[in-house]
Amino acid sequence: MTDFQRQYRKYYDHFERALKNFCAGMNHLPPVLTESMRYSLLSGGKRMRPVLFFGALTHFGADFVPETGLAIALECIHTYSLIHDDLPAMDNDDFRRGNPSNHKVFGEANAILAGDALLSEAMGLMLRESGRSEKHLKAAQYLADAAGADGMIAGQSADLLYSGKTGGAEELDFIYAHKTGKLIAAPVVMAALLGGGDAAGAERFGQALGALFQITDDILDEKGESVKMGKTLGKDAAEDKLTCVKVYGMERAELLADQTAANCLALLNALGGDGFLASIVELVRNRDN
Amino acid sequence: MTDFQRQYRKYYDHFERALKNFCAGMNHLPPVLTESMRYSLLSGGKRMRPVLFFGALTHFGADFVPETGLAIALECIHTYSLIHDDLPAMDNDDFRRGNPSNHKVFGEANAILAGDALLSEAMGLMLRESGRSEKHLKAAQYLADAAGADGMIAGQSADLLYSGKTGGAEELDFIYAHKTGKLIAAPVVMAALLGGGDAAGAERFGQALGALFQITDDILDEKGESVKMGKTLGKDAAEDKLTCVKVYGMERAELLADQTAANCLALLNALGGDGFLASIVELVRNRDN
Repeated sequence: MTDFQRQYRKYYDHFERALKNFCAGMNHLPPVLTESMRYSLLSGGKRMRPVLFFGALTHFGADFVPETGLAIALECIHTYSLIHDDLPAMDNDDFRRGNPSNHKVFGEANAILAGDALLSEAMGLMLRESGRSEKHLKAAQYLADAAGADGMIAGQSADLLYSGKTGGAEELDFIYAHKTGKLIAAPVVMAALLGGGDAAGAERFGQALGALFQITDDILDEKGESVKMGKTLGKDAAEDKLTCVKVYGMERAELLADQTAANCLALLNALGGDGFLASIVELVRNRDN
Repeated sequence: MTDFQRQYRKYYDHFERALKNFCAGMNHLPPVLTESMRYSLLSGGKRMRPVLFFGALTHFGADFVPETGLAIALECIHTYSLIHDDLPAMDNDDFRRGNPSNHKVFGEANAILAGDALLSEAMGLMLRESGRSEKHLKAAQYLADAAGADGMIAGQSADLLYSGKTGGAEELDFIYAHKTGKLIAAPVVMAALLGGGDAAGAERFGQALGALFQITDDILDEKGESVKMGKTLGKDAAEDKLTCVKVYGMERAELLADQTAANCLALLNALGGDGFLASIVELVRNRDN
């Protein structure tokens, strides 16, 4: 195990324990509500956003353990967005993280409610954390904005709008910056706000990392292995989604991924550099899932 | 115009103006996102919850104007719940407040996102208000809980679960207390928290008023006029929903409505009585829409 893998594992294990405790404490009635929420929260995943949050907190000199509540809020928001995104009326995906999608197990109505409930849980956690200090309030507000109608939801809406339509680099950039970028930048910016670091620089790095994540997602949708990705692949092309592969072609998309990774590292250096976060960039660039 | 009508109009007009300003300030992209959110927020409605909130604030000796942000958050939550509830996978209703449902105008995917976005907007408003004082934080937390997985969503989930199944008074009470009760009690309790009043008493009154609202809703679904109600009626029976009419029959349901209205007034008297809030109780009991 490399130092990076050890550190990732440390953050990951801490988060998984906390999330399991959080889920064990949920006793919402009727039971199907709790079951459907737990199903998606505990269905695995790389926990990229919480790990990135913990790594960025460490970078900015803040202890990561006391910020576990915000990490869980972040994962609740991410998970709700996946549940709603997989719905037949949206991306219509039967698989997620190698398991049947929420609505395939619990039905569409329960899946809609599970998503609503996870966003509501995040809201409760963020309000609780916001009461701890002015910094926490600002971090929670940043997360709320990143998740909202000027953030991730705007990206989802644009993603729908440009499916099956012509669109170029400008529309693609909007989708990248919002659909994926906002919720990947959020943990980095929140960490800077909590640690008293350069929030604007953190946002630039986080947005670039979000773009890299979506570029590699687009590439993997075309040439990845569905067993490793844990979801149906080839859907972007089938639904004529506006992706970097559609706009630039595969060869230039790969080049764009390399350039974006290099940009991430340059922006990270502007923050003083960080071995762990640099390895996250490499991981995102070279991932096969 | 009676004194009550004048007062209702005053709260209503203030809220409508504030909501219109709020909507005018929304410029989320792509435009369809803003349009779909505005469509449902501005599609009329009695604004029962904000008016109740303002009336309760006045009762508890607090100025209502500074609490407009929480009133808008409350209406955003109510509106998102209607949009999601009307979806084909949920209650499948083509009409709401006399207009085509959100998904009939914007499509299912945009309606799901409009609902998500309104809940997110509420979250942003609540975080902003929560920073004003400890009281505001407590009020926002109460609203978040009332809307969440131990609140309104639990009621929605139970409503789905018991459709087409046998269920009795206990299951019906759970649905009443959560699906409708939580978000009708919330403005009364928030007002008590903000005004320094009897929050536990406010909750008892608010819950009873919520039950009255749902009982009359069940009755009107069977014998109301769909033009006045602005939505499709007779759906409860068609979908074999667990309603008080199903459990008790129409005659006893009407009696239950009278008893619940009397209970509301008794609980209001325990709070010191209030002419405006008593008239709200009468209005809910005798409404035809």
